[in-house]
Amino acid sequence: MSILVVGSVALDHVETSFGSVEEAVGGSAVFFSAAASMLAPVQMVGVVGSDYPIEKLDFLARRGVDLSGIETAEGESFRWKGRYSYDLNDRTTIWTQLGVFAHFKPSIPEHFRDARTVFLGNIDPVLQLDVLDQVRNPELVAADTMNFWIDGSRDPLLKMLERVDILMVNDGEARQLADEPNLLKAARWIQRHGPEWVVVKKGEHGAVLFGRDTVFFVPAYPLEDVFDPTGAGDAFAGGFFGYLGRSGGRSDDDFRRAMVYGSVLGSYAVEQFSVDRLKTLTADEVNERIRQFRDLTAFDLEVEAAPNG
Amino acid sequence: MSILVVGSVALDHVETSFGSVEEAVGGSAVFFSAAASMLAPVQMVGVVGSDYPIEKLDFLARRGVDLSGIETAEGESFRWKGRYSYDLNDRTTIWTQLGVFAHFKPSIPEHFRDARTVFLGNIDPVLQLDVLDQVRNPELVAADTMNFWIDGSRDPLLKMLERVDILMVNDGEARQLADEPNLLKAARWIQRHGPEWVVVKKGEHGAVLFGRDTVFFVPAYPLEDVFDPTGAGDAFAGGFFGYLGRSGGRSDDDFRRAMVYGSVLGSYAVEQFSVDRLKTLTADEVNERIRQFRDLTAFDLEVEAAPNG
Repeated sequence: MSILVVGSVALDHVETSFGSVEEAVGGSAVFFSAAASMLAPVQMVGVVGSDYPIEKLDFLARRGVDLSGIETAEGESFRWKGRYSYDLNDRTTIWTQLGVFAHFKPSIPEHFRDARTVFLGNIDPVLQLDVLDQVRNPELVAADTMNFWIDGSRDPLLKMLERVDILMVNDGEARQLADEPNLLKAARWIQRHGPEWVVVKKGEHGAVLFGRDTVFFVPAYPLEDVFDPTGAGDAFAGGFFGYLGRSGGRSDDDFRRAMVYGSVLGSYAVEQFSVDRLKTLTADEVNERIRQFRDLTAFDLEVEAAPNG
Repeated sequence: MSILVVGSVALDHVETSFGSVEEAVGGSAVFFSAAASMLAPVQMVGVVGSDYPIEKLDFLARRGVDLSGIETAEGESFRWKGRYSYDLNDRTTIWTQLGVFAHFKPSIPEHFRDARTVFLGNIDPVLQLDVLDQVRNPELVAADTMNFWIDGSRDPLLKMLERVDILMVNDGEARQLADEPNLLKAARWIQRHGPEWVVVKKGEHGAVLFGRDTVFFVPAYPLEDVFDPTGAGDAFAGGFFGYLGRSGGRSDDDFRRAMVYGSVLGSYAVEQFSVDRLKTLTADEVNERIRQFRDLTAFDLEVEAAPNG
C-alpha cells in the first residue's frame, strides 16, 4: 500500500565534530521517503527552487518513490545550516533560508488523492489541513509538528489534530503541546484531542508509543559512531509508516513492529551525513538490525513468589 | 544469599511541586535495603549520629535486614536538603550537612565478612577499597560513584574499579568517568578498566546494561505521578542485587531479569516521599509490575524479505 508524504525538500549545511557537509539533500519528505521506500511505495509532495539539483533525488525514484508531486517554483530552494555540539545532543541553527518553501501550498496530484496512508510532515497546520481536504478517503493519517506551530498556530493545530490518527513528535513538543511535564499525561492529553496513537521520539533515549490501552518502548540502537543526527526523526517516521504500508495491519502488534522498524531506519540514517547511508542501505541490513533489536529488550521472566515480601 | 551494602544513612529534606518533607529517612544504604529486602536478606553497614531516629529503620529489620552494622557516632546525622524543578528533571541541593558521615570509616562486623554479594554505595573510593579489604571472599562486587569522586579521587577510583564486577552509575557519570560523550564507548572504556558489567541509570529514560557481548535496555515504568525521585537509583540498585541475591544466577539472562527488578523497585520508590512506598510494598505488587514490564517492550516480529530493498 502506497504512502503519501508531504513535507520539506531542502539543502542542508551541517557541521558536526566529525566534519561538515554543504548543499546536501535533506528535508523531512526526503528523509521520510528514503527510509519508507525500503518497505513500501511512496508518493512525495513538496516544493524545490529552480536551483535544486533534482537529479540528487534519482535514488528515490529508483526505489519506487513517485516524485511527480515535487513542484519546481521560481526562486531559491529551502536551505538550512546547523551545528551540533560535541556530544551531538544539542543543535544550533546557524541560519534558515526558507526560499520557495515560504510560499509552499501543497497541491496533491490527482493520482495521489486516493492515498490510504498519509504522513503530514512538519509544515504549517493550515497546510496540513489543506492536504487532508485534497485526499479523498485516507485510512491512516499521521502528522508531525514543532514548537513554532505549537506556539504560533495553536488553533489550526488543534483542528488538524482532530483529523489525525497518529501524532508523531519529540518529547519536548509533546510536553509543550499539552503544557504538561509528565510524558504519560501529555500523551493522554493529546489522545483526548484527536489522535488515537501518539509516538514520542526521544533521540538517543529511543521512542515511546502510546495507544489507547498500551504503552510500548523501543530503545535507540546503541551506535559507537553517530555521525550526523539530522533526519533521524524523519527516517524513524519513514520506517514506521513504511512498515505499516507494507503490512497493511493496524493492530497493537503491528504498531509495535512499526516502532522497531522506525528505530532501525532512524539508526541507519545517523551513520553518515545527509541520506548517504539510507541510499546504500539494503533489505538484508534492515533485517539484520531488526534481529538485533530483539536482543536489546528481550527478557525471560517467570514471576515467582518473593520469599521476603 | 545475603547482600552486604555499605552506604549513607541520612535524614532528607525534600521539596517537590507536590509538597515537602523534613527529617525523612533516606540515604543510599536505606533506599537500597528497602528495595533489596523485598527479594533477599540484606546486611547493612553505615553510620548515624546520636540524634538519628533509629526506630524509623525498624521496618527494615522486620523485613530481614540485619542492622548490626549501623554504627552510632557522637554528633549529628548526615542531612541533606534538595528541591526538584516543576518537571522533576532537575534537582538543586539547598544544603548538605555531612555530620558524622564526614568521618565514616566502615567497619564490617565479623559476621558480615563472609558476604558473597557486596554493594558499595556512593562513598569515598578509598573507603570502598577498605571495605573490600575486610570482606573475605566476595563473589560479586558492585559499586556506585559520583562526579565528586570522579573529579577529585580518580586514582583510588580506578583502583577500586579493578576490583569491581559491576559499576552502576548514571549516564552523566559514565560519560564523565570515561571522558567520552558516546554512552556505548563510555561503557566499553569502563569495562576495560575492570568491571565486566556496567549498568547505566538514565532516570525517566530507563537503564542500560552493558555486558561483554550484550546490551540490554529496560525502560522506566510510565507513571502519571512521580512524587519524589529521591532514592530511585538506589532502589533500582536494591531491586537489581536483590534479584541476583535471590536467584544466585550470574548469566546474561539473570542480569537482564535483575534490570527489570531494578526498574520495578525504582518505579515504586518515586511514588511517595522517602521510603514510604517501599515500606508498604508487597510481593504481589512487585510481581504485578514485573508482568507489566513485559508488555512495555515485547514485540513479535518475523523478519521477512522486504519487497523494495
